[in-house]
Amino acid sequence: MVTPPLGRRPGKRDTRTEIVAAAREAFRTDGYDGTTMRSVARRAGVDPSLVHHYFGDKAGLFVAVMDLAHDPRRVSEQLALGAGPKGAGLVLAFLDIWEGPASTGEPGSGFVAMVQAASSAPEVATALREFLTERVWRPEGGAPSWGPALVSVQLAGVGWARYIMRVEPIASASPEEVAALVGPTIDRYMAGGQASEGAGNATE
Amino acid sequence: MVTPPLGRRPGKRDTRTEIVAAAREAFRTDGYDGTTMRSVARRAGVDPSLVHHYFGDKAGLFVAVMDLAHDPRRVSEQLALGAGPKGAGLVLAFLDIWEGPASTGEPGSGFVAMVQAASSAPEVATALREFLTERVWRPEGGAPSWGPALVSVQLAGVGWARYIMRVEPIASASPEEVAALVGPTIDRYMAGGQASEGAGNATE
Repeated sequence: MVTPPLGRRPGKRDTRTEIVAAAREAFRTDGYDGTTMRSVARRAGVDPSLVHHYFGDKAGLFVAVMDLAHDPRRVSEQLALGAGPKGAGLVLAFLDIWEGPASTGEPGSGFVAMVQAASSAPEVATALREFLTERVWRPEGGAPSWGPALVSVQLAGVGWARYIMRVEPIASASPEEVAALVGPTIDRYMAGGQASEGAGNATE
Repeated sequence: MVTPPLGRRPGKRDTRTEIVAAAREAFRTDGYDGTTMRSVARRAGVDPSLVHHYFGDKAGLFVAVMDLAHDPRRVSEQLALGAGPKGAGLVLAFLDIWEGPASTGEPGSGFVAMVQAASSAPEVATALREFLTERVWRPEGGAPSWGPALVSVQLAGVGWARYIMRVEPIASASPEEVAALVGPTIDRYMAGGQASEGAGNATE
């Protein structure tokens, strides 16, 4: 899949912007797994060392393309740290990505754009899934398990309710309130990979 | 907001199709609350009795516009029925809307289209929220409460993971497996409006 370099437009776009544009195209066309630093460099018409210089690695490039305020790999690091309930911290980290000080535009607008892209272009959803699988859900490989999948159900659902549907009281609640309510569910799923104890048992 | 009737196109579109098109436009422009059977009839250039004839009421019209396989008001009826855990049944009803025998196209394609529309057009999200608020979340009015909001977090998250991101094992699991895993969380939220008991407590 050799694509001729796009070359530089006359004038304004800087190299970093060129690389991000080339990477966006590459992730769409080849998926996350099929994209390499080298193929992005080729598309952008720059030396691969420049791509490394600006973005570090492929995951960093993907984060830039998705215009994420924070690298979601931090979420994975947070999950790996220490024992005890981490659900609330995870919800706070998720909300911080979309509405924290480093986010741009309206609170949640990055989430809305991401949902729009993933629902409109299956290739974007695929690239996002590959990225999350490799970098957040199971960085050490292994079979798919219910835990990470159900945690992502919680976080995606919160984003949907808060930023897109603007369901009250979730839309106006503080991040801490949301974290306090949804965190325990995440802890339960992370503990067992499921939530079979409690009110759902037929024996109650 | 009087709009002149669009009149009939020469030829093919039947009256029902005309009404759905007019209603789509009305919900987008005026929201769910601001749309009436009469205003839709006016836009479509038909007698209001025809709109009633085809769709019953405004909610029925909205269901047709969103191209929902099943009327989500049935979910609300299901919630009202009997005592005991209903979360699993609710998840099954939700999945049946999007992939059951009455759904059209690829399994989940209706959900994808709905997410695409709601994330691309805030007016669609608003109309959908007003519809769900009035017809599913709190059909008897009352203040927003955490219960229905957190239940919708679960269902939206499941749809996102299963139909858009196609996260395994959620994407390939049977509806029954998904219901068994997510149902208890819904029961917990419906019981308390929150999920504060269990693994999330710092005292554990």
